[in-house]
Amino acid sequence: MEKPLILVTNDDGITAPGIRALIEVMNEIGDVVVVAPDSPQSAMGHAITINSTLYCSPISINDSQPQIEYTCSGTPADCVKLAVNEILNRRPDLCVSGINHGSNSSINVIYSGTMSAAVEAGIEGIPAIGFSLLDYNWEADFEAVKDHVRQITLNALEHGIPQDVVLNVNFPKLKKEEIKGVKVCRQARATWVEEFDKRTNPQGRHYYWLTGKFVNHDGGEDTDEWALANGYVSVVPVQFDLTAHHAIQQINRWKLDA
Amino acid sequence: MEKPLILVTNDDGITAPGIRALIEVMNEIGDVVVVAPDSPQSAMGHAITINSTLYCSPISINDSQPQIEYTCSGTPADCVKLAVNEILNRRPDLCVSGINHGSNSSINVIYSGTMSAAVEAGIEGIPAIGFSLLDYNWEADFEAVKDHVRQITLNALEHGIPQDVVLNVNFPKLKKEEIKGVKVCRQARATWVEEFDKRTNPQGRHYYWLTGKFVNHDGGEDTDEWALANGYVSVVPVQFDLTAHHAIQQINRWKLDA
Repeated sequence: MEKPLILVTNDDGITAPGIRALIEVMNEIGDVVVVAPDSPQSAMGHAITINSTLYCSPISINDSQPQIEYTCSGTPADCVKLAVNEILNRRPDLCVSGINHGSNSSINVIYSGTMSAAVEAGIEGIPAIGFSLLDYNWEADFEAVKDHVRQITLNALEHGIPQDVVLNVNFPKLKKEEIKGVKVCRQARATWVEEFDKRTNPQGRHYYWLTGKFVNHDGGEDTDEWALANGYVSVVPVQFDLTAHHAIQQINRWKLDA
Repeated sequence: MEKPLILVTNDDGITAPGIRALIEVMNEIGDVVVVAPDSPQSAMGHAITINSTLYCSPISINDSQPQIEYTCSGTPADCVKLAVNEILNRRPDLCVSGINHGSNSSINVIYSGTMSAAVEAGIEGIPAIGFSLLDYNWEADFEAVKDHVRQITLNALEHGIPQDVVLNVNFPKLKKEEIKGVKVCRQARATWVEEFDKRTNPQGRHYYWLTGKFVNHDGGEDTDEWALANGYVSVVPVQFDLTAHHAIQQINRWKLDA
């Protein structure tokens, strides 16, 4: 059987330890092409580059691995669009994004560059998974999660991800032997409570740094936050039809004609 | 009764004709505070600014209108966060974003800075509406849609937008008298088929411009694309719980433990 063609991307940039770990696992499973940002693109949401030029060049990163790699000046979603339309000579069988340095669970999925790459692939009809580790540290222990990355990827290739769905996988920050298992979850209802750090620059002008505190408002035990807090890997199936179907009937009662 | 406090933002920048038209309508309805980007932020998706500083300053735009205005160096989502946490002295009763120059119907909602501002407000528990006109022209006819903007806004304030839902309103590019009415719709299943324009810069290096063609794959008559193509205003209730609940059962059959 032909080996699957796997597109790998991320939002922390092509040299991040998380994507290097992901590439290693994917090389065991298929033919790997990497198209990833040349610099960190965290919190880029589903941004795409329409008002400036996009550069994309082959790059050789000496890690004794067989993958082909390209680095791109754009966002994670740009990387997927460029890969599919300009770089790859056939459609990939899978797109994996990550392993992100930091959580993309619950509401973080909305802000996540990692997940926007996976969602972009999903929109284009390519099965896709975003992987994230709940450790922002550049020296995070990605070895601990490699077996789970492999197992989830093999399952996705074997069973097929449901149509118009992409997977949002988050790993707890634990030693390998401490991880209790994998739970398929729903997205917890949570928010960031912002705390702006207001400062004054040398010219006397005020500016802000965005900081904030993550608050989980959801006591459910079927959520990704619960799974991660209790030692499990969380897998949330994510859709890009954002319609709140349940709300249509209610809004139809309004008097909307002007 | 106290007038509602209305936060106005957009993604085309604070001087765009679309937001000026929106401010005019909102001044008839409530007390208006504008916090909008100082430059165009189209296609920024739900990007937020975490790796650079944010500037936000009062600005006076001489249009004989009573609103208070601030201009911000960040993304539309940043504007909402700054407004709610640093600028406003009470929570707004409504956040409106737009009127965008160009469509945010169907899959465009994912890439839209206009809608990301509305979604950000929604996440923070503030009722929110994004408005967009299917005309990219800077001289688009926003007068034609003002009555509908007013009517939809008044309905949202009177009836309340369902919890965890924001409204994505798109207007067809028609004369006022040609608009047939308003339809509450689901998001059409559509994609952009990318066409990269590959060029060579003066230094001989290749670069790309992202272009593409919008393709609607959805024949349903209950979609926003159908409504807009048939002369109606489309109102899609949008949610930010992205869980594909229907897929959980299927994925639970996989052998996920490593």
